[in-house]
Amino acid sequence: MSLNASSDVVERWGIFELSLEGPEGGNPFLDVTLKARFEHGRRVVEVDGFYDGAGVYRARFMPDATGVWSYVTESDCPALEGHAGEFTCVAPSPGNRGPVGVRDRCHFAYADGSPYFQVGTTCYAWIHQSQALQERTLLTLQETPFNKLRMCVFPKHYLYNEREPLYYPFQPADGGTWDFTRFNPRFFRHLEGRVGDLLELGIEADLILFHPYDRWGFATMGPEADDFYLRYVVARLAAYRNVWWSMANEYDLMEEKSPADWSRLGSLVQERDPYGHLRSIHNCRAFYDHREPWVTHVSVQHSDLERVREWRELYGKPVVVDECRYEGDVEHRWGCISARELVHRFWLGAVGGGYVGHGETYLHPEDVLWWSHGGVLHGQSPQRIAFLREILEDGPAAGFEPVDFWGAKKNDEYYLYYYGVHQPARQTFHLPPGRRYRVDVIDPWDMTIAPLEGVFTGTFTVRLPGRPYLAVRIRSV
Amino acid sequence: MSLNASSDVVERWGIFELSLEGPEGGNPFLDVTLKARFEHGRRVVEVDGFYDGAGVYRARFMPDATGVWSYVTESDCPALEGHAGEFTCVAPSPGNRGPVGVRDRCHFAYADGSPYFQVGTTCYAWIHQSQALQERTLLTLQETPFNKLRMCVFPKHYLYNEREPLYYPFQPADGGTWDFTRFNPRFFRHLEGRVGDLLELGIEADLILFHPYDRWGFATMGPEADDFYLRYVVARLAAYRNVWWSMANEYDLMEEKSPADWSRLGSLVQERDPYGHLRSIHNCRAFYDHREPWVTHVSVQHSDLERVREWRELYGKPVVVDECRYEGDVEHRWGCISARELVHRFWLGAVGGGYVGHGETYLHPEDVLWWSHGGVLHGQSPQRIAFLREILEDGPAAGFEPVDFWGAKKNDEYYLYYYGVHQPARQTFHLPPGRRYRVDVIDPWDMTIAPLEGVFTGTFTVRLPGRPYLAVRIRSV
Repeated sequence: MSLNASSDVVERWGIFELSLEGPEGGNPFLDVTLKARFEHGRRVVEVDGFYDGAGVYRARFMPDATGVWSYVTESDCPALEGHAGEFTCVAPSPGNRGPVGVRDRCHFAYADGSPYFQVGTTCYAWIHQSQALQERTLLTLQETPFNKLRMCVFPKHYLYNEREPLYYPFQPADGGTWDFTRFNPRFFRHLEGRVGDLLELGIEADLILFHPYDRWGFATMGPEADDFYLRYVVARLAAYRNVWWSMANEYDLMEEKSPADWSRLGSLVQERDPYGHLRSIHNCRAFYDHREPWVTHVSVQHSDLERVREWRELYGKPVVVDECRYEGDVEHRWGCISARELVHRFWLGAVGGGYVGHGETYLHPEDVLWWSHGGVLHGQSPQRIAFLREILEDGPAAGFEPVDFWGAKKNDEYYLYYYGVHQPARQTFHLPPGRRYRVDVIDPWDMTIAPLEGVFTGTFTVRLPGRPYLAVRIRSV
Repeated sequence: MSLNASSDVVERWGIFELSLEGPEGGNPFLDVTLKARFEHGRRVVEVDGFYDGAGVYRARFMPDATGVWSYVTESDCPALEGHAGEFTCVAPSPGNRGPVGVRDRCHFAYADGSPYFQVGTTCYAWIHQSQALQERTLLTLQETPFNKLRMCVFPKHYLYNEREPLYYPFQPADGGTWDFTRFNPRFFRHLEGRVGDLLELGIEADLILFHPYDRWGFATMGPEADDFYLRYVVARLAAYRNVWWSMANEYDLMEEKSPADWSRLGSLVQERDPYGHLRSIHNCRAFYDHREPWVTHVSVQHSDLERVREWRELYGKPVVVDECRYEGDVEHRWGCISARELVHRFWLGAVGGGYVGHGETYLHPEDVLWWSHGGVLHGQSPQRIAFLREILEDGPAAGFEPVDFWGAKKNDEYYLYYYGVHQPARQTFHLPPGRRYRVDVIDPWDMTIAPLEGVFTGTFTVRLPGRPYLAVRIRSV
């Protein structure tokens, strides 16, 4: 028996990890229970431990308050029971702003209060590619504006996705099947490593827990195995501050699971995760009922971004259009919109008070498509998405509320209008009297910001270029 | 008393008109009934006559079969009762293809069987402008591809529409109001003249019978006056083969009228019109229930043209998106889409198996905007709409049925795909084996048709330019 705490000093929203040696016989995943209770002043947080193979058991914890935390383990195995100790939680290092949560009903913020404007991208199966390609993906992500990555836990079987993954999540059983009660620690250590790499880059990992594109049986394990798997994933990964839980990609294509199954699975993650990471579920066609209490935000697939404001009203939660089709040129309609169209959709989502996701699917001689495999980007939208992100981050910290038909605003201080396919040659604005405003004409494609001459107040009309795909920003002086 | 038949020889789908002299005293619009029964072989068609002022009563008839027709009048006024006669209906002159009706559930055809591909435009109040401007409008229409014009009977009060009309439909009453029981024959003769001008140009007149943009009281006359007005309009105009009845523009903004009112009014027109001209009702926001039996086709305002195929299924009738917003640069969202966007919407509607309407609203120094006033066109969409019309007329006579996501087809002989914002660099088609096809790549904006080399059969893949807004046409050799 040995006890190994990762460190006795952990930064706020960092990871404290306790390692214990215990039994290797039987099925430790199934036979042994392990919990750890962490205390700080009058607060107690309980986390599930997990078996990591080779007789090693771990419990991970993300402290959310500075100061001294004490802990003690509970187990039905004497070797793991009653281990106690303490560590000190110190202020976070630069760039660590804590986990992202919901703020102001339809927006997000980091736990330290700084705003989070979701600008996501998608590499569904990037952790299942060669290590070299994974490293390349990380280099690309370092140069791009994206602050969230949608990625699957399980490997993917689909068009352009025919190769076997590096690792499998379960240990094999007799007869070429899997033993869903025995996880493959190597798989999960790899997954965690990649989640940690994203954390270092300041990128949220939107972990897709189930998906239908499967040839190995992971999409149809049955309720008992599904629950067992979720508990294990949550025990291992919840302490990573950048984790979001996406219950499924295209849940509605997984016909073996009923709405009641999804409610149970979502509620299970909610119950087991001590930190309340963001939870969502993504559709192919029919939206999930995002009013369910376990759903923290609306993650949808849809190409009409003008409807974001409608969904905000319907669900009263942040709206993230994670898939509005991808920039690319494959022959499928989901993967061949133009860069201009994707940038257009990002802007429509933004002024609708919502958030949009990127993906890229250009034909490639070796079938390496960013959308699933990662690698490098070939398109023209990412730099324009970076431009939008700068504008968002330069705007009101609390995000936008939709106003009128094509605008968003925050208080009376900041207005952002985006005209899309419309090309008005003039616009009249009715702003509160008594304030003075400056007006900029923004070209989202050319990435230019042209201030109009003068200072405006009350009701005023400005001349516009009469070209489509322009925005107007109005800021209180 | 005198009897004056317009001619004893009338072409098929032309107008036979009977003029009778009768009483001038009292209120002839209200006090005198007049009908005429026309017989041809075993068929009898009854039409309503109308008072045209100055003691003249008329009955108009559009014969739909060649040969001898006899007629006799019925009236409660002895001077108008029992006038009988006959005329000969001869073959139509070139360009006269009869009235347009529904064919094959979701398409249109002329009565002579030739197809009608609706390519409409909109000049709501053109007949209420100066005579010079009206003449200019007709000259413009002569040079453009449009084969339908949406136009209001009543004058229009709205932005850019502040002037008084040339004529008023009713005679004034005491106290600055109108006598809704006394029509102004001059107004209606003018209206008929303009409908006749359109007929000469081969343009269908989609007559809007009610609309909400009113300062004279014509939008709120009450049920009795509404019915009386409709009977008069139908009696005067139904014999014009190019008339369509649009019960309202933006019916849902006319809050004084209930759904039951619209059912009654629509059914009244259906009952009084002996020829069954096309009947529709146009929304602002909420669609009317186009399943009602009096509605012959779906006339809607909507900007998502990808939904045309959905509405075809829902209503089982032809879908005409009469307003999908207008090409222009006014500051209102309904009137400032780009020409490219309008052309895009026309193509989306076409491959959805539906039809689309044009309108133009560019700012003008004298506020002459085609959309309402007519005049000249300034935009870039009409020539592209002409190009589309040529392609439609060069295609299958029976029109398209939507197929796949972005295509339409007719039998196995003709396929038209339009990719819109998508830019696939290749496409695979699964066509019936045994036939040989030629493939064209069409650029709807540049108005080019580029045939691909070779002849294709069965399942085949073609390379495409990887640019958005292109179409592919596949025709059986």
